[in-house]
Formats: sequence, structure tokens, C-alpha cells
Amino acid sequence: MVKFRNDWTDFDGSFTRSRASKAESMLQNGDYFNNTLSKIVADGLNGSEFSKTPSLINRISKMTEYYTTERVPLQGHMTLIAYEMLEKSENITDKSLYQAETVACAMELSYFLIMDDIEDGATSRHGKTCWHLLPDVKTLALNDSSIFRSTIHEILKKSFKGPLYIKLVDIFNDAFIHVAIGQHLDAILSRSKDYSLFTQENYDTVVKYKCTYYTMKLPLMLAMILADRADDASYELAENLCRDVGALFQMKNDFMDCFDLESESGKSGTDIQEGKCTWLAVKSLERGNPQQRKTFTTCYGSWNPEDVETIKSLYKDLDLKSLYEEQQIIRYKMFMQKVQELPSNATPTPQLFLKLLQMAQGGQ
Amino acid sequence: MVKFRNDWTDFDGSFTRSRASKAESMLQNGDYFNNTLSKIVADGLNGSEFSKTPSLINRISKMTEYYTTERVPLQGHMTLIAYEMLEKSENITDKSLYQAETVACAMELSYFLIMDDIEDGATSRHGKTCWHLLPDVKTLALNDSSIFRSTIHEILKKSFKGPLYIKLVDIFNDAFIHVAIGQHLDAILSRSKDYSLFTQENYDTVVKYKCTYYTMKLPLMLAMILADRADDASYELAENLCRDVGALFQMKNDFMDCFDLESESGKSGTDIQEGKCTWLAVKSLERGNPQQRKTFTTCYGSWNPEDVETIKSLYKDLDLKSLYEEQQIIRYKMFMQKVQELPSNATPTPQLFLKLLQMAQGGQ
Repeated sequence: MVKFRNDWTDFDGSFTRSRASKAESMLQNGDYFNNTLSKIVADGLNGSEFSKTPSLINRISKMTEYYTTERVPLQGHMTLIAYEMLEKSENITDKSLYQAETVACAMELSYFLIMDDIEDGATSRHGKTCWHLLPDVKTLALNDSSIFRSTIHEILKKSFKGPLYIKLVDIFNDAFIHVAIGQHLDAILSRSKDYSLFTQENYDTVVKYKCTYYTMKLPLMLAMILADRADDASYELAENLCRDVGALFQMKNDFMDCFDLESESGKSGTDIQEGKCTWLAVKSLERGNPQQRKTFTTCYGSWNPEDVETIKSLYKDLDLKSLYEEQQIIRYKMFMQKVQELPSNATPTPQLFLKLLQMAQGGQ
Repeated sequence: MVKFRNDWTDFDGSFTRSRASKAESMLQNGDYFNNTLSKIVADGLNGSEFSKTPSLINRISKMTEYYTTERVPLQGHMTLIAYEMLEKSENITDKSLYQAETVACAMELSYFLIMDDIEDGATSRHGKTCWHLLPDVKTLALNDSSIFRSTIHEILKKSFKGPLYIKLVDIFNDAFIHVAIGQHLDAILSRSKDYSLFTQENYDTVVKYKCTYYTMKLPLMLAMILADRADDASYELAENLCRDVGALFQMKNDFMDCFDLESESGKSGTDIQEGKCTWLAVKSLERGNPQQRKTFTTCYGSWNPEDVETIKSLYKDLDLKSLYEEQQIIRYKMFMQKVQELPSNATPTPQLFLKLLQMAQGGQ
């Protein structure tokens, strides 16, 4: 399952709050972003081919509500804040902020979540019945997802022109490619039942594709493009530092899926049952003695509750909780060190990286 | 079901064969196009993000084979021929032809066919098990379809730059929008069971979206863009004339779905069972007396073989075969008259329209 968790509050590092910015005040204003999103989608489709089929405009608006406005649009917020921190202050106008909001909204239209829910056999998202299970959707969900992807294109086309437009269209396609590769690798690793493939290296690759790009790198890159500060060096820097944050992010997702008995849904996840290549699975195989590895390969990827309990006991026997906490601190320190070593005029700036980490921790 | 039928051989109008062209000689050379297609996909993905996951490159290559090379790539051929007929002869070089082939190949990667097969509950396409039913595909088919759509983007990105690239990317997105709207309207009309909606007007709208754009207008527009002869007037002319050909095309599809007992599969289609808004259904409701309309609304959209037979008998009672033949001739004549009234230097040219009609009839 692709998850964009917004409750990443493990660390208690203290950050200097950036000055109260225009974007931040906007975002603090309750549902501001979600209300803007509906308006931007409506404006973007106004006069488009879709607008000749009013029932479809309503449907797109309903999809938008289903898959975006029901959650905290963390990546959209990141894009806006990053844009404001990278842009020269004289260039920040109502118009330029609206353009940044447009891009932020487009990135929140995560068309692939519809497909993801079908793939996972999910029944609900954000507390509501999944889109593909609604009576007037069913198999039309696939077509809807294609329509949603085209909606992103239409919105960008309406607001941008020339080289900037090409850059945005290409970066979105690149993001979709990364997410799709991540989904692909995630699925084939799980289905393979070949646990020799459950290595740290393969795990890192999956995380890079399925999590890091969309949750951290894309907001940064969009902001860099908008502020005209995007070049190969800044992309590389973003890639390097986002990797650490993405790893922290996904490691926590994996841990919570298994051990967060107090999660919103009141039940733990199904990574064990689905045989996912999680951080816990990789570490069990690394740390386990031959007997424990045997137990793992026998019981993993099974929906039998006894097998699931055996795996959870194995995780406890191997004390993966301590390892998790230890590795989170190491990775966090590594990230902080890299940030502190950056020249203050780097793109992205050290301040921006700290701000994004703070946002990812839920401290926005 | 989205069908691209290549056996449209009803008419015996005689056309002047255009001069033996370079594109035509290439196409007559057996599997030339399909071989080129595999090469163009491989070249397009070389160095892309996909290429870092070799198993994915193999998968895309297999998808290409599944959904393109197993059928006559009529729209791809049309694009090539149209390009050659529109381009100034001094501009036709090996490089320009390869660019035209690249575009033609990209348009043959009909990613939505994967989704279409899932939507229709289809089990085979071109005589092979559907992609989504393969053991290593299943629900990953949705992700694969997203990957396939991104492949089109990657191929275009590799071969084109600047304004030409934007125009191509936008026209492809426009095509995907049309196909998706067509699928949407087709599905909601069938599901509604509200036969007051089965009007000629609604039928024409569905045909415009689900058939005309992709099968006729897109090849023409791509060729016009490549030959730098695309403007609003030429788009409008293409739209106008393609509408007639699309109507002929879809009307025949509908007729064959019901009456072609000698089709390849050896069985008739399932338009009646699925309750599709076909030309036959529209005409039954127009022509039927109150009793016949009652019969229609009672039996249509049912999988009960008796109901299906009742509908077929109704079609025979209403002599829809004669009406079909009559209307095909009227529409054909209308098209020919429009073509003959075009100035010889129109874009697209009258010769090109005749050639495309001839190709659509299977006389390429």
C-alpha cells in the first residue's frame, strides 16, 4: 500500500521556526488548501474537453474530494513552503503564489491511489469506502484513474506555457514513473517468496521509488522549478538528502504497520500477511540464526493468524524495536550532519531541508 | 469494448492509388512496422529511469508485443502515410521518416486497452489470453497500464524537443481524454438502463469520443503537426470529415457485433447482453411501435439467451439490415461529396482523405 503518513513525530529535535510566511499563514487557515484545490481543479477544467460532459466534471470533483481533500495534503504544503523559501522575495506575488498552489494541487491529485486500492484489495481509505467499491464506479475506476491523470495535465496546461510547462509535465511524468516502478518492485518482491531477495539493498531501492520521490523529492523539485533554481546539482542534492528522510519515513511506516495497535483503524496492518519486503523482514533475515530464518521463511506471507503471531514473536525475540530506535537516531543524525555541512547558499538551502523534516514530523 | 477493426470492406468505390511512396513500400514489407516498433520502444527507454530495472524493460517489451504487434497497426500506418502525403518532398529524409515512425509507434501503444479488457471482463485479445489474466500480472495490470502510458511520454521525450514536443505531448493527452470520455459515456449509458437516453444524438457523441478521435483524427493530426501544417482550420476540417468516417466505422462495428456469425471468434458479440447504446438499439427505439419498444426495454441488456434472441428478431422485424445498408451509402456519399468540394490545396488534402478511407476499408 502506498501510504503518506503525516504523523511522523518520533524525534524531539528542536528547529528554528522560519519567519511567519505568507504561505504558512495561508496553510494555518484551516481548510484553505483543500478549498483552493477544488477551485483550481474547476478552473483547470473550465473550457477543456471534459467540460463538455458536465456529469464528468462532477465526477472529477468527487474524485478530488475522495483522494485529496480527506487527508492533510502534506506534499502540497511542502511544495508551497519550499517555493516561498526558495523564491526571491520580490518575485513573490499573489500570481506567483497561485501558480505554486496550482502545482501543489496538481501533485495532490494522486491518480495512482485509486489503482493502489484495487491492487491491495483495500476496502476503505481515509475512513471512506474505496472509490472502486462505490456502486457507480466498480470497473470504471480504471478509466477514472486515467481521467484523473489527464486532469493533472489539463491543470498544468491551463496555467503554464513554454519551457516551464514542459519542465513541469516532464517532472510529473518522472514522478509517476518512480511510483510505478516502486509499486512494481514492491509487488514482485512480495509475490516471489524468494527471501534471498529481501536484502537491505533491494529494500532501499523499493523505498527510493515508492516513497522518497513522491513524498520528499517531488515537492522540492517543483519548488525549485517554479523559483527557477533547478539544475542538475540541485536535483542531486535533493536526491541525496531526501533519501535519508525517505528511509526514516518508510522504516517508520513498516514498524507502525506491525506494532501500532493504537492506529486510527484500531487494527494492525497486513504487511506480514502480504509477504511485503519490509524493514522488519529484512532485519529478521539479517539477524536471525538458521533456526529463526527457517521460522521466518515458513511463516511469512501467510494469512493464518498463528503464522502472523509467530512472525511478530520473532520480531520481538530479535529485539527489532531497539534496533529500529537506534537506526532512526543514526539516520536522523546523518541527515542533520549533511544539512549542517551544506553551504548556506546551497539549493535547496539547509533551512529548507530542516523545515521539510519538521513538516514531515507533523510540526508544520 | 474498444475495437479497432481493420476489415472495413463494404464499399467498392474505386480510388486512385497514390504513387508508390517510400512509406508505403516500407509498410508493404511484411512485419516492418512491428519490428520497427520494438526497436523504437527499446531506443526510447534506453537511459530512462525504467532502464535501471531490467525486468521492467522486459515487461514493457512483452506488453508492447501483446497489445500492438499482434494486430495490424492501422492507425500507425495511417500516420506514416498521412505524414508523407502532407510533407514537402524535400523535407522527407530518413531522419524525418524515423521521427514519423516514432510518433506512429507511440500512438500504437494503446495503454487503455489493458484497462478496457479488465472493464469488459474480456478473456482474450488477438487470440491470446488477456494481459491482466497472466499469472505474473493480475492486479499489477493497473500499474502496468500506467507504466505503458509513461512509456509513450518517454519515447516522445527522447525524440522531440521544444514546441514540437509540447504539441505532441498535448495531442496525445487530448487523445487519451477523448478515449476516456468515450469509455465513460459508453459505460454509463449501458448501466443506466434508461432507454430514453438511447438517442441518435447521444450515440453520435459516444462515437465521436470512443472511435473517431483515435482511429482517424489522431493519425491525421499527428501527421499535420510533424509536417508543420497544423492550425485550427486544419484541425476543424479533420474533425468534420473524420466524423463521417468514424460514424461509418462504428455503425459497422455495431452491426457486425450482432450479425457477424462468421467472425474470427466464431461467435457474435455481447453488445445486446451488456445493454450497449448501439446504432441498432437506437434505431429500434426510433422505428419501433409502442409494442416493439416495450419488447426492447423488457429484453435488452439481459444475458438470458431467449431475451437476446428476442432482440435479434426485433432487429430483423424492423429490417435494420436494409436501413444499415442505406445509411452506410448515404454517409459514404456525404463524405465523398465533402471531399470533392475541398480545394485541392486544403489541409488535409482531398487525396489524403481518400487514401485514409481506402486504408480504413482494408485496401492499403
